[in-house]
Amino acid sequence: MASGLLEDLIESLRCLPGVGPKSAQRMALHLLQRDRDGARQLGQALIGAMERVEHCESCRIFTERQPCRWCSDEQRDPRQLCVVESPADVLAIDRSTDYRGRFFLLLGHLSPLDGVGPTDLGLDRFEARLAAGEVDEVTLATNQTVEGLATARYIAELCARHQVAVLQIARGVPVGSELEFADGGTLSVAFAERTRIGDRR
Amino acid sequence: MASGLLEDLIESLRCLPGVGPKSAQRMALHLLQRDRDGARQLGQALIGAMERVEHCESCRIFTERQPCRWCSDEQRDPRQLCVVESPADVLAIDRSTDYRGRFFLLLGHLSPLDGVGPTDLGLDRFEARLAAGEVDEVTLATNQTVEGLATARYIAELCARHQVAVLQIARGVPVGSELEFADGGTLSVAFAERTRIGDRR
Repeated sequence: MASGLLEDLIESLRCLPGVGPKSAQRMALHLLQRDRDGARQLGQALIGAMERVEHCESCRIFTERQPCRWCSDEQRDPRQLCVVESPADVLAIDRSTDYRGRFFLLLGHLSPLDGVGPTDLGLDRFEARLAAGEVDEVTLATNQTVEGLATARYIAELCARHQVAVLQIARGVPVGSELEFADGGTLSVAFAERTRIGDRR
Repeated sequence: MASGLLEDLIESLRCLPGVGPKSAQRMALHLLQRDRDGARQLGQALIGAMERVEHCESCRIFTERQPCRWCSDEQRDPRQLCVVESPADVLAIDRSTDYRGRFFLLLGHLSPLDGVGPTDLGLDRFEARLAAGEVDEVTLATNQTVEGLATARYIAELCARHQVAVLQIARGVPVGSELEFADGGTLSVAFAERTRIGDRR
């Protein structure tokens, strides 16, 4: 629209997930018309983050210093590891639970067809830590999808091989939901894994 | 998430319209994990555009040079002006119609309650051009909303005062739509402004 720079901006905005040509145009015009300061700040934030945010060498989360905030937090038990697929999972767990151990991020899941093996998920380093006796307990919190569950099973076997305790997060009907709307698989697990009242710690 | 820069990025992404905290987090993680080049490019595009894209002095569209691409296009009749509310309207009209005159952007509509008067829409300069005899014909293509129609009526009066011909875009049932789903106001206009077959130019 009358401007190479504006066209560049619209095109560049399409690198954002879920942003098509129409949204990109709306965003670009909005920024130019109403929020130039915000846009400048976003530009700087993007460049700064891409330049300096890397994976933590220990847990693979995104961080700008080594080790990351989580791995350098003395309040967190370094002998407990929670295995998750993505950085967003760490945030969600930290927001809602009182888990106080450390994390290990797979940044994906096992997917032999796509050529994603254990090494791509950092599981060679993970196993080395188990072998070195650095870890007492592993909590599996991968997604409850076929791939996530297969990955969890693989990790559980690694733990068993090194005599490390392994737990998995509870599965069942979501809190606040109505049974009527629970899918069959969830209901089936909820019944198969039901617990006697009073057994819950 | 373990990073001031990442938190800055998530916060900054919220300046985009329709992006809340969850989408901002998803976008930031997506860019870090999968599209660092795209993100760097977007950062540069944002900074470049905010620095150098301004309003065209003649038609008020966004441009990085004066006059803009539209106002310097010799193929476009400078004596025809199409009045629209937003830059997106110019793009849409240019994509779908064979209008070959120039544009004038209001960048809003009259809204006395919000303190938006004719001067804020550039209508003082617009009227000066009518008075100078620079324009033969004005096409009103404001939105078909109460505010857009009130603004169009105001501009039509300016044109009448300076003996400049004024047209408004046709209103009626959208092409490709079913009558059953047309709203009452649209149907009413479609009947009130119906044309004899053979009259259409």
